[in-house]
Amino acid sequence: MADSGLPHRPKPEETPEAAAAPAAEGAGGPSKNALKKAAKEKAKAEKAAQRAAQEKAQAAAQTADDTAKDLYGKIPKTEDAVPVTRVKELSEDLYEKEVTVVARVDNARVQSAKLAFLMLREQGTKIQAVVAAAEPISRQMVKWTGGLSVNTIVQVTGIVKKPGVPVSSATLSNLELHIRKVYVIAEAAQMLPMQVKDAERPPPEGADEGQLDSEGTPLVTLKTRLDNRVLDLQTETSQAITWISSGVAQLFAEYMIKSGSRWISTPKIAGAASEGGSNVFEIKYFKRNAYLTQSPQLYKQMCIAGDMENVFEIAPVFRAEDSNTHRHLTEFTGLDFEKTFRHHYHEVLEFAEDLLVFILSELKVRYKDQIAVIQKSYPKAGDFRLPKNGKALRLKYMEGLALLKEAGVDVSEQERFENDFTTAMEKQLGQIIREKYDTDFYVLDKFPMSVRPFYTKADPEDPTFSNSYDFFMRGEEIMSGAQRINDVKELEDSMRAKGLDPNQEGFEDYLSAFRQGCPPHAGGGLGLNRIVMFFLGLPNVRQATLFPRDPQRLRP
Amino acid sequence: MADSGLPHRPKPEETPEAAAAPAAEGAGGPSKNALKKAAKEKAKAEKAAQRAAQEKAQAAAQTADDTAKDLYGKIPKTEDAVPVTRVKELSEDLYEKEVTVVARVDNARVQSAKLAFLMLREQGTKIQAVVAAAEPISRQMVKWTGGLSVNTIVQVTGIVKKPGVPVSSATLSNLELHIRKVYVIAEAAQMLPMQVKDAERPPPEGADEGQLDSEGTPLVTLKTRLDNRVLDLQTETSQAITWISSGVAQLFAEYMIKSGSRWISTPKIAGAASEGGSNVFEIKYFKRNAYLTQSPQLYKQMCIAGDMENVFEIAPVFRAEDSNTHRHLTEFTGLDFEKTFRHHYHEVLEFAEDLLVFILSELKVRYKDQIAVIQKSYPKAGDFRLPKNGKALRLKYMEGLALLKEAGVDVSEQERFENDFTTAMEKQLGQIIREKYDTDFYVLDKFPMSVRPFYTKADPEDPTFSNSYDFFMRGEEIMSGAQRINDVKELEDSMRAKGLDPNQEGFEDYLSAFRQGCPPHAGGGLGLNRIVMFFLGLPNVRQATLFPRDPQRLRP
Repeated sequence: MADSGLPHRPKPEETPEAAAAPAAEGAGGPSKNALKKAAKEKAKAEKAAQRAAQEKAQAAAQTADDTAKDLYGKIPKTEDAVPVTRVKELSEDLYEKEVTVVARVDNARVQSAKLAFLMLREQGTKIQAVVAAAEPISRQMVKWTGGLSVNTIVQVTGIVKKPGVPVSSATLSNLELHIRKVYVIAEAAQMLPMQVKDAERPPPEGADEGQLDSEGTPLVTLKTRLDNRVLDLQTETSQAITWISSGVAQLFAEYMIKSGSRWISTPKIAGAASEGGSNVFEIKYFKRNAYLTQSPQLYKQMCIAGDMENVFEIAPVFRAEDSNTHRHLTEFTGLDFEKTFRHHYHEVLEFAEDLLVFILSELKVRYKDQIAVIQKSYPKAGDFRLPKNGKALRLKYMEGLALLKEAGVDVSEQERFENDFTTAMEKQLGQIIREKYDTDFYVLDKFPMSVRPFYTKADPEDPTFSNSYDFFMRGEEIMSGAQRINDVKELEDSMRAKGLDPNQEGFEDYLSAFRQGCPPHAGGGLGLNRIVMFFLGLPNVRQATLFPRDPQRLRP
Repeated sequence: MADSGLPHRPKPEETPEAAAAPAAEGAGGPSKNALKKAAKEKAKAEKAAQRAAQEKAQAAAQTADDTAKDLYGKIPKTEDAVPVTRVKELSEDLYEKEVTVVARVDNARVQSAKLAFLMLREQGTKIQAVVAAAEPISRQMVKWTGGLSVNTIVQVTGIVKKPGVPVSSATLSNLELHIRKVYVIAEAAQMLPMQVKDAERPPPEGADEGQLDSEGTPLVTLKTRLDNRVLDLQTETSQAITWISSGVAQLFAEYMIKSGSRWISTPKIAGAASEGGSNVFEIKYFKRNAYLTQSPQLYKQMCIAGDMENVFEIAPVFRAEDSNTHRHLTEFTGLDFEKTFRHHYHEVLEFAEDLLVFILSELKVRYKDQIAVIQKSYPKAGDFRLPKNGKALRLKYMEGLALLKEAGVDVSEQERFENDFTTAMEKQLGQIIREKYDTDFYVLDKFPMSVRPFYTKADPEDPTFSNSYDFFMRGEEIMSGAQRINDVKELEDSMRAKGLDPNQEGFEDYLSAFRQGCPPHAGGGLGLNRIVMFFLGLPNVRQATLFPRDPQRLRP
């Protein structure tokens, strides 16, 4: 029946260690898959037998004279209307008061026939709850409570007390809930592939799956976390990171709207692979082929040509690059903007610099609690440096090159304009700039024309260079942008100079947009996930992505 | 050279009629393509010859004693720093004052050797400008100005005057600019495929391309407009519609953020076509296949299972449906949300109802100028009715059915729960509700389980029905939503009841999310484009989409 969705069952008295063991196994250790599967099946069968026996025992207990029989079990209709307090809002002010909370069982443990403990978790915040057999609480209730499956969602009513000694494993170590009622809202399976509490420390580098640390706790690799992302999202760190991601999107939109920019949605399916060429995904589109856009570049410029003046978009960006690195994804969230200017492209550049300073400094203010949580695992999270004067540091590309050269880096290829900086050079430059200017955010302006895309406007003073810029956080690129060519002849010439044919399929609509007259404009595209990653100093962009996609990963 | 991007050239003295003619031709008339092309080529060659002659003539004039030679032509460096006033900010307060504006040439016309007129257009707002030969303005300058290509972007400095008689074709009919300087910022080609001014009236229904109306103005069909979307975006109506679209996204985000919802970005590329089956686009993903998601449904629920509590997303949604109707697109902007509740799914339903009331009533307040503009072409735009008490009208599905039956509609299939309402029934119901309740926005609750997807929660009181709802605007659906099943066994049973195999590829991660415990939740998904379309009473969803995609259209 439809409303019998939340059954409750008694469980064996498991010590926390016993509860953790099958989880570590389920997480996928170094043992062969077949072996693991067999062991799993066996364990499953045993559990099923145990469970059947206990269900029988409980049924008997229920019919017997259980003084607490209305105080635990599946949540009754009458109970779900009780006002609920957030765990994170509990405090010493509530000592001796009765409260009701809804939380997950982070751990359940029977101490004796008369005493059991629950560790409760609400979005990473933990509090200990105790249930002791004393009228009306029965021994059956104690046993049942201590046997709750890890991750089960429960509604607990109890008295807030000061614990005898602070509970060091809890977030709220000076509080303890003395249980009066426990009801199940949603039950978790007895065997989970990963324990949330094991995922609470950062993923170990170089460790094998199933390995234990010096304290005997299973090490959970990034792969296992991502394979079980729903469990991983429940950790305090993931909760905080997803808030930061939300914050970046929100702050971007806020700044744009304040500036009078129009929110646009450009198509992700295009009839031709115009912008880049090989790095696009091909789609079967009814009886023909189509392509996923690599960026809204051509479309946002067409909006400018359509007199929209100032536009922004927040949307997925697709890259069919077979790059398996810590910072590449095949799909990420792009924050794009494009804007006309009156006198000089630096009007737009300054607008973009102020945007980043706004986002990064507001993150520090509005999300300081989340940053503090993340800092426990990733110490750099709390140490992102911004210029003291509130204005971005802007250097010319050639000034960046000079700084590298000064530091003894071989930049001869770059001096000949054959290549952009390598990733290693960028990181080193980031280090140099941090030391010299005390900032982790900065801008390089005036890139050589040779390393920029065809639609980039050359510097009118010296066409070797271009009116283009990159933004960096901790020495890694988060944005690329430029003044765009707005004259159709100049654009066609630039295409030919880059080996592109203006008559190629897919360029017609783009070129028409300039043929009918287009005002001077500039813009840029940011990667949300990278902003989050570099702001917090996370080792991998996948940690800053809800459900990451890379050449190997299409799940979950 | 890079900075020679904005050349200026003299043009023949064209009457507005002559200027319009090639545009109508270029718009793609009923004549054969080949013929059209030949005619176009010929016209092009003639223009080129004329142009060459005039360039020569102008060069001569320039060297001759032109008293105005610094007052027109390509914009000089010194001029682009002059402060600019927005055309829409001009008013009678500025009579006799000098102002500088940047605008497009909507029309240029030489009256005599000593007098020429420009109609200037800035995002749909028009003002007439006059240039008269009188020291220092030369006859050359008059001729050059009157010959500017339609759509060229110019910077005009002039004195604001009261015209002798109001200029009825201008938006600012009581103002006129007496030109002192005219410079070209970006030149338009002489032949455009469509004239913006011809696209200013709504697309005619049933007219052929190239046809003229009773006043001799070319009729521009929706197809031509969409083929030339960049020009079409420049009309006053399109400018206003794109602001409304921007507003819907903004208001959705605003409401969600205020409610403590987290902004999420879920992947659009998935490893399996889990949600619907046949209506998904297939992608080549390196050496395997992947699919474009039809909605963030499964992912946003996984976020809820990951303890995120309240989430929203603004992102493209892809539908491989071969539907060629006025309201179907293969790609549109989805506004999705998902939220836990405590006692009853009506908590979320009310949250969603208030969301829509917020968006629709705020649109009326914040975008009243844009609505007034759109109303000139689409009279319904200003007449969207909302409940006076600020709360949505909510009827049960069966109440809606009763209303239809009462009106004599044959609803026997619906009474047998074999089918949902047809589109025609929905529209009729919309009409009935408007008459009876004086509202264009309403909600139907408690749909039959048989017409809803597998993840929908059945009504615990009567499992024939479900805890699900649709939202309607003017009798057309804009949102579908429901309480979702949050118990894994119930979910598997529901899948089987709908003929789906829970062990099918792609469901594993989704089911795991519930196996580990998931709180009760509900949500919904809105189509931004449809909200805009129905709010404004536009005949076609493509008018509410920047660059629409349908089975036939992948350009521009």
